[in-house]
Amino acid sequence: METLQKERENPAFNVHAMSVANHGSEKALEFKRRVMLEIERDLSFWNDDIYDLTKDQLRERTIIKTHSILNWFTNENLDDFQARLAVISVADPGFWTRFGVHLGLFSNAVRSGATSGQFAYWMSKGMLSVRNFYGCFGMTELEHGSNVAGLQTTATLDENTDEFVIHTPNLGATKWWIGGAAHSATHCAVFAQLIVKGKKHGTKTFIVPLRDPQTYRLLPGITIGDIGKKMGRDGIDNGYIQFTYVRIPRAYMLMRYSQVTRDGQVFEPPLQQLTYGALLQGRTLMVNDSGNIAKKALTIAVRYAAVRRQFKSDPKNQYETPLLDYPIHQRRLMPLLAQAVAFGFTSQELIRMLDATNKALDALEPSDPKLEATLELLKSTHATSAGLKAFCTWSTLQTIETCRQACGGHGYSSYVGLAPLYNDFAVHCTWEGDNTILALQSGRALIAAYQESQAGKKQGEALNYLNHMDETLNSKCSSFEELDSLAGIESGFETATAYFVQLAAKEYEDYMSKGSTREQAFEQCSQIRFVAASVHTSLFIFRQFRHAVEKLPESDDGVKKALETLCRFYGLWQIEEKGALFLRSGWLSSDLYDQLARRVTELCAETRKFAIPLIDSFEYTDFVINSPFGRYDGNVYKEYFAMVQRNNPPIKPHPYFERLIKPVLNRAMEETEDLDEAIGLDEEIDEIQAERKEADQAKK
Amino acid sequence: METLQKERENPAFNVHAMSVANHGSEKALEFKRRVMLEIERDLSFWNDDIYDLTKDQLRERTIIKTHSILNWFTNENLDDFQARLAVISVADPGFWTRFGVHLGLFSNAVRSGATSGQFAYWMSKGMLSVRNFYGCFGMTELEHGSNVAGLQTTATLDENTDEFVIHTPNLGATKWWIGGAAHSATHCAVFAQLIVKGKKHGTKTFIVPLRDPQTYRLLPGITIGDIGKKMGRDGIDNGYIQFTYVRIPRAYMLMRYSQVTRDGQVFEPPLQQLTYGALLQGRTLMVNDSGNIAKKALTIAVRYAAVRRQFKSDPKNQYETPLLDYPIHQRRLMPLLAQAVAFGFTSQELIRMLDATNKALDALEPSDPKLEATLELLKSTHATSAGLKAFCTWSTLQTIETCRQACGGHGYSSYVGLAPLYNDFAVHCTWEGDNTILALQSGRALIAAYQESQAGKKQGEALNYLNHMDETLNSKCSSFEELDSLAGIESGFETATAYFVQLAAKEYEDYMSKGSTREQAFEQCSQIRFVAASVHTSLFIFRQFRHAVEKLPESDDGVKKALETLCRFYGLWQIEEKGALFLRSGWLSSDLYDQLARRVTELCAETRKFAIPLIDSFEYTDFVINSPFGRYDGNVYKEYFAMVQRNNPPIKPHPYFERLIKPVLNRAMEETEDLDEAIGLDEEIDEIQAERKEADQAKK
Repeated sequence: METLQKERENPAFNVHAMSVANHGSEKALEFKRRVMLEIERDLSFWNDDIYDLTKDQLRERTIIKTHSILNWFTNENLDDFQARLAVISVADPGFWTRFGVHLGLFSNAVRSGATSGQFAYWMSKGMLSVRNFYGCFGMTELEHGSNVAGLQTTATLDENTDEFVIHTPNLGATKWWIGGAAHSATHCAVFAQLIVKGKKHGTKTFIVPLRDPQTYRLLPGITIGDIGKKMGRDGIDNGYIQFTYVRIPRAYMLMRYSQVTRDGQVFEPPLQQLTYGALLQGRTLMVNDSGNIAKKALTIAVRYAAVRRQFKSDPKNQYETPLLDYPIHQRRLMPLLAQAVAFGFTSQELIRMLDATNKALDALEPSDPKLEATLELLKSTHATSAGLKAFCTWSTLQTIETCRQACGGHGYSSYVGLAPLYNDFAVHCTWEGDNTILALQSGRALIAAYQESQAGKKQGEALNYLNHMDETLNSKCSSFEELDSLAGIESGFETATAYFVQLAAKEYEDYMSKGSTREQAFEQCSQIRFVAASVHTSLFIFRQFRHAVEKLPESDDGVKKALETLCRFYGLWQIEEKGALFLRSGWLSSDLYDQLARRVTELCAETRKFAIPLIDSFEYTDFVINSPFGRYDGNVYKEYFAMVQRNNPPIKPHPYFERLIKPVLNRAMEETEDLDEAIGLDEEIDEIQAERKEADQAKK
Repeated sequence: METLQKERENPAFNVHAMSVANHGSEKALEFKRRVMLEIERDLSFWNDDIYDLTKDQLRERTIIKTHSILNWFTNENLDDFQARLAVISVADPGFWTRFGVHLGLFSNAVRSGATSGQFAYWMSKGMLSVRNFYGCFGMTELEHGSNVAGLQTTATLDENTDEFVIHTPNLGATKWWIGGAAHSATHCAVFAQLIVKGKKHGTKTFIVPLRDPQTYRLLPGITIGDIGKKMGRDGIDNGYIQFTYVRIPRAYMLMRYSQVTRDGQVFEPPLQQLTYGALLQGRTLMVNDSGNIAKKALTIAVRYAAVRRQFKSDPKNQYETPLLDYPIHQRRLMPLLAQAVAFGFTSQELIRMLDATNKALDALEPSDPKLEATLELLKSTHATSAGLKAFCTWSTLQTIETCRQACGGHGYSSYVGLAPLYNDFAVHCTWEGDNTILALQSGRALIAAYQESQAGKKQGEALNYLNHMDETLNSKCSSFEELDSLAGIESGFETATAYFVQLAAKEYEDYMSKGSTREQAFEQCSQIRFVAASVHTSLFIFRQFRHAVEKLPESDDGVKKALETLCRFYGLWQIEEKGALFLRSGWLSSDLYDQLARRVTELCAETRKFAIPLIDSFEYTDFVINSPFGRYDGNVYKEYFAMVQRNNPPIKPHPYFERLIKPVLNRAMEETEDLDEAIGLDEEIDEIQAERKEADQAKK
């Protein structure tokens, strides 16, 4: 415990000022503290026993919290409530999802897809007050996830009754993974193929009542089952839904973009892209969550590393060496610390981009002259957010696993908190756009931008390296000083990114010239497209971090200096991680590569010096961290032992000794019976043969 | 289902012959098939419901299997039994561990540490027949894992009674993670500090009875608790043990290497290293397990990828495209397929090395002239196995996660089998030698070997690149043909490895020359030491694979050709993965780097062609795979749906609607009461004030 206190003496920066920087503002920090206090004191969020709950227990525990969240939901503005959810997601990912399917998925689908009359109608039905109403989001099917256009559930207009018939035509079309379906939802936003007069019109959204909210009995034609055990987030009741000729009024189709009239006319939206705006929010949340969850994981691993001692480098030392003092342990954790901070600043920027995009979209009328500019903004935000969602969630999943392993054998215990965190977080890599597919979307946008820029169209800020391609490609790092500067690092990223974007575009064009279709050519160059997206995304993150740092006022609180170190560290470490790309692009020479590796090791040691104050500035309470290893006071072993004992009280008598162990350990010796003696079979055979012989001889 | 059958038409090789090659021999393959059949028909191994069992249920289920395993254990030779356990480890990792702590850890500790009289004594007590006897392995403590010499449990000789007193002096010395302690074990092999006449003699092993085998009551002075929920392997009952002045006869200390006499004389072993031979077996098992588990994971992901269709690259196509036909999906899975096969051949070789080492050790007498040669062999096997254990288990953990994500959203379902597999496997990276520490041990051995070779001592086969260092370092890949050949790849690995081993050694020497102690210098150069171990290990694996392939007879069954392709693929992919090292070493030029990337993509496509027959040649039955996604017949969706339904039968009534949901969704509207009207407080205040005024005026 003294160890951690010592780490906090003479910090390299004012911890509160660092905290404000990490949270964007004093106000945001204050609000987060308030939320953490509120959930800690709200006993429905009690989490001491959480790691031992079974799936069924977790589900009950999760629904209990709904009461509290509804109170906040109805009494605070949406921005504050979103900020509250971001904290809750770190404290309790399963609960966040269970409420999120209603609020984030269902309600947003209605908000963005309904006409204003429809929206008012669903409000009056209790959608936002969550009164006799709980929504779920029926998009994915057993056989279709990523390919939304390929969904097979049908919604066929019956003009005689002015109704849609919602139907699951085969097993593969069963709605699957539907969060909240198994035990919570009364209504579902169903994605289905619109069929009018025998003609398919593509995937639209329909509100389908599932259960009577008074009794929770399933409505006619609705089949719902529980899809059971998952890797994590067992607090959320994912289910499957099959519709068997279920009838809903025509007005239950969301008609802001597409419309179907009483007499069966279908109007398509002028611009398909506008409907995709809703995806942005989920991605932004996940980038934000990536930074926050990485900080949670690192709080556990880094504090523990300062307390845990193992081996002495000199037998004369009084104590063993703390893990945090080992260069290899610093190498494992310190770069991830820089990365988590970088993700935090990137997320702040992404939230700003999302707000700007949403405002532009909301203000838009179909014939607006700003339409093209808005679409450009949407496209660029979309491509950027796709790559960020993919690479940030992947990196954070890896961060959690590295933190877990950095706790050695103890990391395998659920009570340390990292194993459950991994299991909860892992779904971020495949839901709301599979990471690989999103990364490729981002790569596709890069190729398109390259081609545009070759055709003379100037690219925006995020892609400005395409505007002066020759210069960028020919740039070389001339000295260690350049390598070690923020401007140098950014220029290196630009060169490497430009090189691989160009290579991807050339491969694409090469396949096109050999007769591939556009889709085929994109598939064929997918690996290099993926690589281009990866390095572009790192560049984007580095830039957000750098801009944020440079915008900070000069001050003697040490914050700017430490963040500059972390920014440099993140950049150089990423260059090392993607070393082959920087060597290949020609920007980095072999000699500088060796110096780079040593510099990264030095930066690990520099960061180590303020690692604990930096962790403190992430400001997660012991309650939210819920790990004896991540405690602020460093009283690791005593609290770990106490938590294990609390959750595994001695059982008397032994739960299964009499039934199961005793029959095995006390089993009788198998005595090898001498069958010859017991039966005397061989003698009998001799007798039988002798008799036969006699009989034979008698015959003769 | 037809899809998978189609993949099996006209295979590129004879699948049976490939299977024999992957399993080492026809006999090994036959035996594995027999074991798989036996456990499938043994109903105690029933696994259809396994993914839904709680920790407590799993523990009971696990102990039930002990009965069966004991039958096999007592009736088959040790080699066959080991081969059986290797299969069981794939089918049921938790059970393998629970029996393994007795057999692999406890019994081996006694076998290797006991004098022959002691061994006979423990045999007579039921150790090997597992009769009134179940052992556990008491090494790790709450505060000490990797540093065995730092363990704090004490074993103090009481010369008056000729006993040892085993004692846990503080909380941190509590034995922790002890598999089998919570509910199974009757005896423990306790690692404790030997104290005789007040003097410490280092860590020795003592057999300490824990429980009365007739009643399972704890013996006096023994405290045992359950350490509860873990990331995976919940079938094993890990526990903690505290000893409070527990007395055992002096003869219960294992005395093959160190001896303590009646009058308190202590004899130390002539060579400390000999006691570490036991560690080798665990590592070899884990390398073997890495290959096997990777094959299990790939069976699930690759078969599913052949069945799952998503998107069409051409709208005119009748069906959507199978995932396996997408170049990016090939990029995700095919290299891992080559790697799993490489691990299989490496493991065969490692088992041979282990046998040779064990035979040499067993034959050894203290004054043997072969002592030095045997120690060299032990040292080299030790260093090699350390690196292999680390990098193979890391790679396989990553393989499982990649396979899981390659199943898209469904990979998050427990029933697909990959999430539980990840959770079960993850412990391999931290137990029996933390991977990072093992990798560094391997790197330390490489530096030592480099220094020896610089001093003129010729190195053995595994390190032969050190014998002609200048030539190796100056080697350059001259053409694509060289890059694409097995000899070329091996030479590239030698150059890159030599470069980084030399760099590590130079960094080490540099720190030494600046005044660091040996230990400090090793720590300071740990990152580059780690890198050197990583590329050396890849070289070792590539070589085992190459040698195995080249040893195969020429034949027209297609096996040798396909394995050559896989070997080349593994090598080139590893060069790409570690691209910066090959570019930096000077062996690989920038131009060839671009060609390398394209060649790896081509090899993905080539391997894709025979991916399903290759998976078939891994020969895991549907029972062992236990995943609807990995089924041989490809009937994925129907069986997935059926498995989910079987394990989540519809619940009537709703489990918690009345209790938990109704109070929330049907809650009364909160009416905002007009307090002013209800209480009339403001009017009252006016009245009070008016009265006071009057009173005041009256006073005046």
